[in-house]
Amino acid sequence: MSSDIVFIGLGHMGLPMALNLVKAGCQVSGHDLVAASVEQFAAGGGSTGQDLAAALGAAKVIITMLPASRHVEGAYLGASGILAQAAPGALLIDCSTIAPDAARKVAAAAREKGFTMLDAPVSGGTAGAAAGTLTFMVGGSDEGFALAKPYLEKMGKAIFHAGGNGSGQTVKVCNNMLLGILMIGTSEAIRLGMANGMDPKVLSEIMVKSSGRNWALEVYNPCPGVMENAPASKGYSGGFGVDLMLKDLGLAVENSLSTGSSVPLGALARNLYDIHSKSGAGGLDFSSIFKMLAKAE
Amino acid sequence: MSSDIVFIGLGHMGLPMALNLVKAGCQVSGHDLVAASVEQFAAGGGSTGQDLAAALGAAKVIITMLPASRHVEGAYLGASGILAQAAPGALLIDCSTIAPDAARKVAAAAREKGFTMLDAPVSGGTAGAAAGTLTFMVGGSDEGFALAKPYLEKMGKAIFHAGGNGSGQTVKVCNNMLLGILMIGTSEAIRLGMANGMDPKVLSEIMVKSSGRNWALEVYNPCPGVMENAPASKGYSGGFGVDLMLKDLGLAVENSLSTGSSVPLGALARNLYDIHSKSGAGGLDFSSIFKMLAKAE
Amino acid sequence: MSSDIVFIGLGHMGLPMALNLVKAGCQVSGHDLVAASVEQFAAGGGSTGQDLAAALGAAKVIITMLPASRHVEGAYLGASGILAQAAPGALLIDCSTIAPDAARKVAAAAREKGFTMLDAPVSGGTAGAAAGTLTFMVGGSDEGFALAKPYLEKMGKAIFHAGGNGSGQTVKVCNNMLLGILMIGTSEAIRLGMANGMDPKVLSEIMVKSSGRNWALEVYNPCPGVMENAPASKGYSGGFGVDLMLKDLGLAVENSLSTGSSVPLGALARNLYDIHSKSGAGGLDFSSIFKMLAKAE
Amino acid sequence: MSSDIVFIGLGHMGLPMALNLVKAGCQVSGHDLVAASVEQFAAGGGSTGQDLAAALGAAKVIITMLPASRHVEGAYLGASGILAQAAPGALLIDCSTIAPDAARKVAAAAREKGFTMLDAPVSGGTAGAAAGTLTFMVGGSDEGFALAKPYLEKMGKAIFHAGGNGSGQTVKVCNNMLLGILMIGTSEAIRLGMANGMDPKVLSEIMVKSSGRNWALEVYNPCPGVMENAPASKGYSGGFGVDLMLKDLGLAVENSLSTGSSVPLGALARNLYDIHSKSGAGGLDFSSIFKMLAKAE
Repeated sequence: MSSDIVFIGLGHMGLPMALNLVKAGCQVSGHDLVAASVEQFAAGGGSTGQDLAAALGAAKVIITMLPASRHVEGAYLGASGILAQAAPGALLIDCSTIAPDAARKVAAAAREKGFTMLDAPVSGGTAGAAAGTLTFMVGGSDEGFALAKPYLEKMGKAIFHAGGNGSGQTVKVCNNMLLGILMIGTSEAIRLGMANGMDPKVLSEIMVKSSGRNWALEVYNPCPGVMENAPASKGYSGGFGVDLMLKDLGLAVENSLSTGSSVPLGALARNLYDIHSKSGAGGLDFSSIFKMLAKAE
Repeated sequence: MSSDIVFIGLGHMGLPMALNLVKAGCQVSGHDLVAASVEQFAAGGGSTGQDLAAALGAAKVIITMLPASRHVEGAYLGASGILAQAAPGALLIDCSTIAPDAARKVAAAAREKGFTMLDAPVSGGTAGAAAGTLTFMVGGSDEGFALAKPYLEKMGKAIFHAGGNGSGQTVKVCNNMLLGILMIGTSEAIRLGMANGMDPKVLSEIMVKSSGRNWALEVYNPCPGVMENAPASKGYSGGFGVDLMLKDLGLAVENSLSTGSSVPLGALARNLYDIHSKSGAGGLDFSSIFKMLAKAE
Repeated sequence: MSSDIVFIGLGHMGLPMALNLVKAGCQVSGHDLVAASVEQFAAGGGSTGQDLAAALGAAKVIITMLPASRHVEGAYLGASGILAQAAPGALLIDCSTIAPDAARKVAAAAREKGFTMLDAPVSGGTAGAAAGTLTFMVGGSDEGFALAKPYLEKMGKAIFHAGGNGSGQTVKVCNNMLLGILMIGTSEAIRLGMANGMDPKVLSEIMVKSSGRNWALEVYNPCPGVMENAPASKGYSGGFGVDLMLKDLGLAVENSLSTGSSVPLGALARNLYDIHSKSGAGGLDFSSIFKMLAKAE
Repeated sequence: MSSDIVFIGLGHMGLPMALNLVKAGCQVSGHDLVAASVEQFAAGGGSTGQDLAAALGAAKVIITMLPASRHVEGAYLGASGILAQAAPGALLIDCSTIAPDAARKVAAAAREKGFTMLDAPVSGGTAGAAAGTLTFMVGGSDEGFALAKPYLEKMGKAIFHAGGNGSGQTVKVCNNMLLGILMIGTSEAIRLGMANGMDPKVLSEIMVKSSGRNWALEVYNPCPGVMENAPASKGYSGGFGVDLMLKDLGLAVENSLSTGSSVPLGALARNLYDIHSKSGAGGLDFSSIFKMLAKAE
């Protein structure tokens, strides 16, 4: 399949995603405010230098990968934004991680103008983006999902249809809130065992076969030395940063306010990551919350 | 293998455990303060009516299954307790769920008198006890573990050696604290998704394939209707009761105090279950914490 | 002083506030979407029935008392809103309790059009509004504060200048978050004492003279029977409702997200009030959180 | 009044307390395991060098000031302990801060042997101990309280009778749990205001006149520079240390477990102080929790 795609947002995630579309044979016009990112995209075979308005008017598919709700609202809703410039029938896919409320707002505006729009946030990090193994959680109509799937499959390997507009963001927010909680919970449990003299590896091996089993115990143990390839065993480098987890927990708490939901553990998790980040750990992998629970070295 | 076992504590868990030993061909002398329990044991083929002191003096293996630390301390350490009455060489196995500190204290006293003692708390509930499919988490020496394993295998199917004395209790406390946290976190995540209009089944199916995966999502979904056989779909009946989870979280918090550990989520989980219990839910399955997060019906 | 005031928002708080201005001799044109409220204002001597646009164009002072951020933004920023209709030189005073971010946004828009605007949220409840004993926390310039003070003094007895625009809302949000925390903390302390057999009155009397002293212990004890006139002794009726506290804690948590602040206790307090409200207590006084900490009757 | 007092425990608190008894004209025999402390007591005019058993047998009043529950239990209940050695009619006063359960246990043993015993923990810190301005919270009978009061007045200025045995400890535990919560809540509120650009002094001054008022805002502001004499303005030196607050919060949480109480904020406060202590702040004043809520310098 060859197609005209406009890709806006060539950052740490967007660049490798857009390049995977290029590698798959798509014609992709890349856009970013950072010149260096555009150059990297060009170096990888992407098409650059087009006037954005003209490119938007000619594209069949427009994909955005932006930092936060306000950037997405700006990109789509502005006077010279995507909804104002895109050609009738263009498929709009926002891969940014933003508030479900913002996703629904933008999608409603798109629908009013006759566009099919999807929220399709990803998980898998920069490694998954580079390898084309991202997970996409997609919100939007069945028709929209069917149209988008071939493109998403060039960038990821698991493509879930979560429900109507905003559902992709909702799943991401819910999943990552749960992840933030289970990482702290797992860290507390291992620390408690160690304080009783236990070997963290033995403890982890028993718990992963018991009712405490969870993703962190399976593949991402927060205790250094238990899993050779986990960020914990590499100085908490790589992986998913504390400040990214903090952003996602912020979206979860924000959503709990707008929906009137109770998230006592989720809200506490946000504040613990916030305190951890303020202590200087913002750039470490999020499993480094394990460090906060023991005496500083 | 036929042997002389004394089994003390024929309650909801102890009775079916002791009966499984009987079914496996062991000679078991059963003891409990509650006459009705002793009768049930006799009706199931158990041996009853022996003088406890005499039985203790003759037993090769002494197994206890009691409610709390103070009962275990009383049973072993009292002037006419197990350590005073048991024959030299008897193997002592405490299957109660108690504080790791108490387990270490009793084991140390046993060791001083030359006994081999193990802490071997279980998980799996009354159903697992009846079916002989319990999980045992065992603390004690390698030799002790090897001696005890044949007996434990008659009552359970997974027998883990966690480490030295107290390690069995430690694993149980750590695992169940983590479980308590995961169940609330999973409930919060599903509730948050539902408040955004999502189908809890679709949300759960995506999260179980993502980084939010955990035991509750896999086999024990707290949302009614998502899993046919989970307690949530049966009015939160059966399963593991709120007050039992509350007891285990109490042991975890108590242990965090004696070891100087940080358990912010674990401590909050205990208080949430405590509030839930006080509202009248103490007898429901612990996944009913899901109900606390939505408007009362 | 006689003046032309437009007062928008004649709800439970706004109506008695506007009537106090009338009693003080001001000419006040009252406006509300609810006809019954307007009639009550007329019955109290207020001026009603004017065309809003015309009234805004003629007013020296415009006061708003609205439910939430979005209503205030709508009233001021809309195409036919206050900023579009007010006469040059009019003094704008928003007494609503809204997000500091929203207050700063509206004030910036007002400033751009040359208006002096103040955020002046109140505390003291409907009783304080009726008695003219409200506390005003005012954000805005020194000049604006000096201009507004004579009007505010007709409705309240303590008028604080907190700083620049948004500071009034900030103080209210910070104070009420702290209040929400100290009410739960005080309830926990009294419950813990009672669980040890103590007389809650004796315990409260000693703590109020010690380092646990706080406003709740001084004038608003949450335990029924300790203070005759506290809502707790009147079935938790009157006072400041759970759902109002929940709204203010929501503003605090929202603000913690937009400013990147850590509020672990504040966030937990919001979730505890949310759970309490969902159990059916939304309409009770907020000190009824004391009930949540004991067995349901 | 001149009398024969035995004072056991001449640490940071006990030494100045015992010396105040000496200054008031009492004959006080001082005992401590640390020779240096005994020497300091002698240098201050205290009587030292007596055989403890003999001194106990001769004393009218026996006062203990020890670190924790286990030391108190050891001192009173041991085979050669106070209850075994004291003369009939001796008045026993324990000024240690220990678990209410432990206080009741020791008092019950004392009562059984015919002794009148009081738990009389203090607040006011080492400064208050030196100045003789401590607050005593006393549990025990009316008669016991009347007997003890003249002695306590030589060491303190506020002497509260809280109720029966254990009530002194209960008040202390409840009060200090509330204090720990209030200090964090106050810190969160001030930090949140500062993040909105407010002057912490102005914010504090308004809140102390509002419903957020509490002891910390009145006399112990945690923000450096707001109160000249508060520990916050002296590098968080002096005052009441983080690790002492942590100990008291541990007693509160322990008591919540033994009494089946809900203390969600109290339990979270303990964990936040624990994390703060582990980061290296254990020796700072407890108001330094304010530092944990902002970026590390």
